[in-house]
Amino acid sequence: MSTARHTSTGTVPVRSGTGLAARFAAVRTFSATLCEPLVTEDFVIQSMPDASPARWHLAHTTWFFEALVLKPHLPGYQPYNPDFLYLFNSYYNTLGEQFPRPQRGVLSRPTVGEIFGYREYVDCAMRQLLADRNLSGEVAGVVEVGLNHEQQHQELMLTDLKHAFSCNPLLPVYREQPRPEVGRVTPLAWCDFDEGVYEIGAAGGFCYDNELPRHRVFLEPFAIASRLVTCDEYRAFMLDDGYRRPELWLSAGWDTVRARTWRHPLYWFERDGIWQQFTLSGPRPVCGDEPVCHISYFEADAYARWAGARLATEAEWEVAASRQALAGNFVEEGVLHPRPAAPGSDPQQFFGDVWEWTRSQYSPYPGYQAPGGALGEYNGKFMCNQFVLRGGSCATAQTHVRLSYRNFFGPDARWQFSGLRLARDPHATGESHRGH
Amino acid sequence: MSTARHTSTGTVPVRSGTGLAARFAAVRTFSATLCEPLVTEDFVIQSMPDASPARWHLAHTTWFFEALVLKPHLPGYQPYNPDFLYLFNSYYNTLGEQFPRPQRGVLSRPTVGEIFGYREYVDCAMRQLLADRNLSGEVAGVVEVGLNHEQQHQELMLTDLKHAFSCNPLLPVYREQPRPEVGRVTPLAWCDFDEGVYEIGAAGGFCYDNELPRHRVFLEPFAIASRLVTCDEYRAFMLDDGYRRPELWLSAGWDTVRARTWRHPLYWFERDGIWQQFTLSGPRPVCGDEPVCHISYFEADAYARWAGARLATEAEWEVAASRQALAGNFVEEGVLHPRPAAPGSDPQQFFGDVWEWTRSQYSPYPGYQAPGGALGEYNGKFMCNQFVLRGGSCATAQTHVRLSYRNFFGPDARWQFSGLRLARDPHATGESHRGH
Amino acid sequence: MSTARHTSTGTVPVRSGTGLAARFAAVRTFSATLCEPLVTEDFVIQSMPDASPARWHLAHTTWFFEALVLKPHLPGYQPYNPDFLYLFNSYYNTLGEQFPRPQRGVLSRPTVGEIFGYREYVDCAMRQLLADRNLSGEVAGVVEVGLNHEQQHQELMLTDLKHAFSCNPLLPVYREQPRPEVGRVTPLAWCDFDEGVYEIGAAGGFCYDNELPRHRVFLEPFAIASRLVTCDEYRAFMLDDGYRRPELWLSAGWDTVRARTWRHPLYWFERDGIWQQFTLSGPRPVCGDEPVCHISYFEADAYARWAGARLATEAEWEVAASRQALAGNFVEEGVLHPRPAAPGSDPQQFFGDVWEWTRSQYSPYPGYQAPGGALGEYNGKFMCNQFVLRGGSCATAQTHVRLSYRNFFGPDARWQFSGLRLARDPHATGESHRGH
Amino acid sequence: MSTARHTSTGTVPVRSGTGLAARFAAVRTFSATLCEPLVTEDFVIQSMPDASPARWHLAHTTWFFEALVLKPHLPGYQPYNPDFLYLFNSYYNTLGEQFPRPQRGVLSRPTVGEIFGYREYVDCAMRQLLADRNLSGEVAGVVEVGLNHEQQHQELMLTDLKHAFSCNPLLPVYREQPRPEVGRVTPLAWCDFDEGVYEIGAAGGFCYDNELPRHRVFLEPFAIASRLVTCDEYRAFMLDDGYRRPELWLSAGWDTVRARTWRHPLYWFERDGIWQQFTLSGPRPVCGDEPVCHISYFEADAYARWAGARLATEAEWEVAASRQALAGNFVEEGVLHPRPAAPGSDPQQFFGDVWEWTRSQYSPYPGYQAPGGALGEYNGKFMCNQFVLRGGSCATAQTHVRLSYRNFFGPDARWQFSGLRLARDPHATGESHRGH
Repeated sequence: MSTARHTSTGTVPVRSGTGLAARFAAVRTFSATLCEPLVTEDFVIQSMPDASPARWHLAHTTWFFEALVLKPHLPGYQPYNPDFLYLFNSYYNTLGEQFPRPQRGVLSRPTVGEIFGYREYVDCAMRQLLADRNLSGEVAGVVEVGLNHEQQHQELMLTDLKHAFSCNPLLPVYREQPRPEVGRVTPLAWCDFDEGVYEIGAAGGFCYDNELPRHRVFLEPFAIASRLVTCDEYRAFMLDDGYRRPELWLSAGWDTVRARTWRHPLYWFERDGIWQQFTLSGPRPVCGDEPVCHISYFEADAYARWAGARLATEAEWEVAASRQALAGNFVEEGVLHPRPAAPGSDPQQFFGDVWEWTRSQYSPYPGYQAPGGALGEYNGKFMCNQFVLRGGSCATAQTHVRLSYRNFFGPDARWQFSGLRLARDPHATGESHRGH
Repeated sequence: MSTARHTSTGTVPVRSGTGLAARFAAVRTFSATLCEPLVTEDFVIQSMPDASPARWHLAHTTWFFEALVLKPHLPGYQPYNPDFLYLFNSYYNTLGEQFPRPQRGVLSRPTVGEIFGYREYVDCAMRQLLADRNLSGEVAGVVEVGLNHEQQHQELMLTDLKHAFSCNPLLPVYREQPRPEVGRVTPLAWCDFDEGVYEIGAAGGFCYDNELPRHRVFLEPFAIASRLVTCDEYRAFMLDDGYRRPELWLSAGWDTVRARTWRHPLYWFERDGIWQQFTLSGPRPVCGDEPVCHISYFEADAYARWAGARLATEAEWEVAASRQALAGNFVEEGVLHPRPAAPGSDPQQFFGDVWEWTRSQYSPYPGYQAPGGALGEYNGKFMCNQFVLRGGSCATAQTHVRLSYRNFFGPDARWQFSGLRLARDPHATGESHRGH
Repeated sequence: MSTARHTSTGTVPVRSGTGLAARFAAVRTFSATLCEPLVTEDFVIQSMPDASPARWHLAHTTWFFEALVLKPHLPGYQPYNPDFLYLFNSYYNTLGEQFPRPQRGVLSRPTVGEIFGYREYVDCAMRQLLADRNLSGEVAGVVEVGLNHEQQHQELMLTDLKHAFSCNPLLPVYREQPRPEVGRVTPLAWCDFDEGVYEIGAAGGFCYDNELPRHRVFLEPFAIASRLVTCDEYRAFMLDDGYRRPELWLSAGWDTVRARTWRHPLYWFERDGIWQQFTLSGPRPVCGDEPVCHISYFEADAYARWAGARLATEAEWEVAASRQALAGNFVEEGVLHPRPAAPGSDPQQFFGDVWEWTRSQYSPYPGYQAPGGALGEYNGKFMCNQFVLRGGSCATAQTHVRLSYRNFFGPDARWQFSGLRLARDPHATGESHRGH
Repeated sequence: MSTARHTSTGTVPVRSGTGLAARFAAVRTFSATLCEPLVTEDFVIQSMPDASPARWHLAHTTWFFEALVLKPHLPGYQPYNPDFLYLFNSYYNTLGEQFPRPQRGVLSRPTVGEIFGYREYVDCAMRQLLADRNLSGEVAGVVEVGLNHEQQHQELMLTDLKHAFSCNPLLPVYREQPRPEVGRVTPLAWCDFDEGVYEIGAAGGFCYDNELPRHRVFLEPFAIASRLVTCDEYRAFMLDDGYRRPELWLSAGWDTVRARTWRHPLYWFERDGIWQQFTLSGPRPVCGDEPVCHISYFEADAYARWAGARLATEAEWEVAASRQALAGNFVEEGVLHPRPAAPGSDPQQFFGDVWEWTRSQYSPYPGYQAPGGALGEYNGKFMCNQFVLRGGSCATAQTHVRLSYRNFFGPDARWQFSGLRLARDPHATGESHRGH
């Protein structure tokens, strides 16, 4: 572990030579695959400062390889266009000034075609670099970060498009899907865990620096729900005036609810008395058994309080999830929407479907050290006013996520596929606030 | 005149039958012509709330004919897409809610291709309507307003594109132009006018409601400059600390200068000690003899005060301009940039080149009455916190502008081709503030 | 007139020697008189950026005499406290930087007692200066401006206190008043005026620079109402959905109505189905015959449109008011609230009661020239995005206002005693929008 | 412990009868003592939304006893003024709507005199209640919370006054103090701690709910500094361009530094090349050996990174501080400013002087449960986007603070007496960023 901490990526590179080249090709191709349903105009739009145009995601992920791999490590490499080094830097101060984020949707040039040309140019140089049998572990490590980085942006591209399409009164469809069949309700069961010292954090294989070092934590006894909270359950919270009772909310959450007049999850709307939701397949009725989705930390926290429970800490989540297989409804399934739980009381849905909000604010692990250089800006500088989410979603690549993977967003963010799982103290007298 | 005031458009329709159909075809075609240099991505972007995407301009001008002409006046007309009636309404409360203006750049659908399809559909129906020999004067009047409306949006399309392109570090070129030759300086002369009662306002032919009724005004004696203020003259103001001396500015102007850190006209930038400006032909050095352009009312007013002069009122301007031919550097010239004055002391440049700020705040003429219905929202409701500009610019159609034409923008607007001409009281002791 | 224009005040000084000293004593004393009902805490508060604490008004009016009269014109004068020259400058850039206006309520020192000490110190020096038999006309002119300036701030002190008290749930009383008796309704009559060239502007005596020069205007025929619009009339507008119909409003006004959720005049509130208003005598029921008050330009304009009329221009107002005696319900009456019109159809209420919004945006008169130096900042730099009000209010000193007096505020300002009088074009077909 | 968790205060009441009455008298009297240096005007002002006027602190702490103790628990109690129940509620939604916080400085009534009358009225009733020999433990517990609550507001009253006075160009003095003597520099030593399971949280005696339950944590080995960071050390960070190097800052911190143009701690200013600071004794030169103060979490974090160290977690801090006596430079000392460390390498300054920022975001302890009712709003609802500070400051009452005491503020807050102590991983390769 200690070695890993001192590479520039904070990781143990897991692939090299042919394997890495194949993975490079696969990940890069998948970005283009995700763009197949788009028309040129779709690539340009930016619906809020937090989101970016698809054309920007395509260029920025390419910029990463150019700026962090090719420029420093491929002798004689000529940048495709020096302006792009500025235009497509996201937040790496180490690498120079950045074009203002909220203005990304103001650019029409380079065109989509030119950006695909840029991708091809960089891919070509990358293939040359990856063909080198003597590729150093350090460079391979940066490439692996670049691929994981691109996978993150693939997910963002989907969630940003969903947001942008939802702003269009025409409610465009990204990809048609068959309507899910209505299934049976899966009752919620509780899984108990004993107190004790546990180890969490990355245990080997590729990981981001923020998953390191693996370390010990003491956990008091806890229980965690066998499945995610469903839309029907969440609707009961809404019907019980959940959005109108300040005692259920964090102070900052209550301010947010009032300022933005939240009354339901993002993308829900009522038509003729029936709750609908906007999906990547267009609008469709809310399915009661599906996991509730597109809620903020504030809403997840308020729901849990109302239900007489709480959210898990990320350590609790990781301990519980460590007994589950890393499988589920990921982007590879192509559904792009969470699915109802399977019958039975076995623990499930830890991976895929929706990112699960934890009650843990995003902080460094004991002994954490950001790497030097630009990669040092990847994770550590965001450890403030963010909450950790775990487990990946239906828009995440299965090859991207890990047991120790830490995602993070501000407590008011709703445009990711984010939901929740309940936890509780085993002997808590925790009173529910139901039945107002 | 009084009749005109009671048509729904406030105008005397000037064309009908074949003439109107021909003009309809010409104006509509010109919108497409202006789009020839664009790639699909260019149609989508919106660089500030005051600007709109080109695709929106194309659709909104079409919506005007659909909502105000075809729906009420062509029996059996089926709207192209009912959603468009909402999507492409700009500010006509009479015709329903509007999609939020600052969000226009968030839409990628309908696509550019679909919008051209919409245009063709509406043009086809319009041709049918215009072929009617019994077309009423009232309907012909609304069509004429629609064509003038489209010409206004053609100009906005150009100024909005210029603004959007200027935000792109790649500084795209809309249309290449030969560099202007450097000419000789044309000295400024003063033209004197006597006191007296003058008539201003539209005297016949098509006009907007805000140019009516023609009425009398008393003018004290005044003098007006023979030509526009040049870049060299404006640069002298900059060098004399014009942007740092509060005594030269209106109070609100001074607040604006500090809040936005203005130091020069919009689109100017210094590179290697040389002043450059961004134009629709890309960046090029500031040409000293050209009229200064892209300045706000605040800047025009401050410059005039510094120069020991003032801006003309719109009545003074109209009286002075009434002796000039309606000719000049309009959009039909294809230059899309103001041109230096011709040699000689004859009054010139009243029409075309740049819109001239007047000191007149935009108010109703005595006896003004807004028409009923949606067209009543065209002009009258903006008579507050706007200043009048006169004479048209290099982006205005010559067939659109008139001696009595009143354009108006807020005092901080800079993205139009706006400049200034000096005026003064003939016996004023008006001290210059030069030579600080 | 031309001489007056070249004094530093733009005025003909009207008093000197004993007369001026007596007026100085009277005006200065009246500021203290207005403070009699206040407790120390009341002097400190500032309820919005547009308002100022009473302690600031008392100090700033004193500063004016210190900075513009004593420092330059009384040999050997020592400023009371050099910090005050900065602390109590309002907006005179010529005289140095200013303490930020919205922060005036953050200061507790100098204390109220110290400020009264400052006043006494300056008054003492002023008495010395005014005792000089050879006092120049120029200096006397600046003193006269200072006294008018103080009278303006006396009015602001009252309106700022009213605003601050209205923010306090305890609704404090500034001064108890007997409830007005309910009278009879005075019907509205119209007074007609012929077209022609009229003279407006100050004709002699003291005036501000913005009332100069006296000049000629051509007026088309017009009619003006014999009295102000009443609360009952305004209530009919409210009941007819006046605040919910966009077609009645200027575009900027409609935006304001929605953003601030205006539904009635400032200080009105409904309790148990009865309209109440907060006054300087505390809350009391709205009296139907009283002039409506505390409305913005936007509301005055919308009301007039609804009523099938319009506001007068300031020239029309001045021509009409020139036939009336300068008398009415001014601050000297001590009522501090507008009064119902007297019976009869004679024109009335032009002076006192409420400031009357005109449709004229605040602009320079032809030949206007701001004086040099600090006094040049008094008026001219605000000639942008303001509307002119005429006639004075129940909080204005009768000895302050004139036929040619031009007050001005932004179109959204409501905290002054501002109301309206209707005007119209005599033969207008002007349709009312009543009876929605 | 578990019992304590289920009282309404989450505490074990530690006093009753005479003891509690004496403490009540002492705490309430101390509020008045702190007001002795104030003039009436000082009680009214509010210099920012986060701060409150002194008159509000005095009334709100009184309101607490009225609303949470007297109304529910003293039979026949009549509220002093029903409006006060609304006016002086801070954030207890359970107890009704609240007067808007940023508007507290807009109120002049009730006057300061009336508020002291309100205090006397409530104190009188409280004495009656406390004289009851059968006072329940529950009620005594709420009284104890009310006293701790008042002590918190005493500290806020001092820091809010300091902020307000600092905004006044006259820089008023709250209380004169002799200048500190310049001492010798105390070198920084490191104290090492072993890995292991530790217990933290309140262990008995009065505490707030957020200190409960006492629980176990696993700590990796760590080292902590023997004393606080000094002004001289912080100045070295400033000189090394600390405020201009993005790599030293959290992303949100860097945004804040740029938006607010921070270049030094709050209250520092340079005059004639010498760093001064504003204190409650007026401006005086920065003393190099004093602990640096009035810095935000962002600055503490950036400084630690620059120094090759980090902040302690709150668990680390509590473990280290548990070996120290609860003594130090508290408000009882009357100095109201941090003092230099004593000579020697013994650990010191854990209590008093300045609140120490920890790297722990404010979260619930495992098993935490907010009490029901209004007291449930005291702490739990702020567990979001706040960082924990430990140890109390020179403005904190020694009788208020505890080893387990958790204070919390947002990462950009600077107006508290907040500073930092360094920590580090014992074998860290942690590179310093000094010597830029």
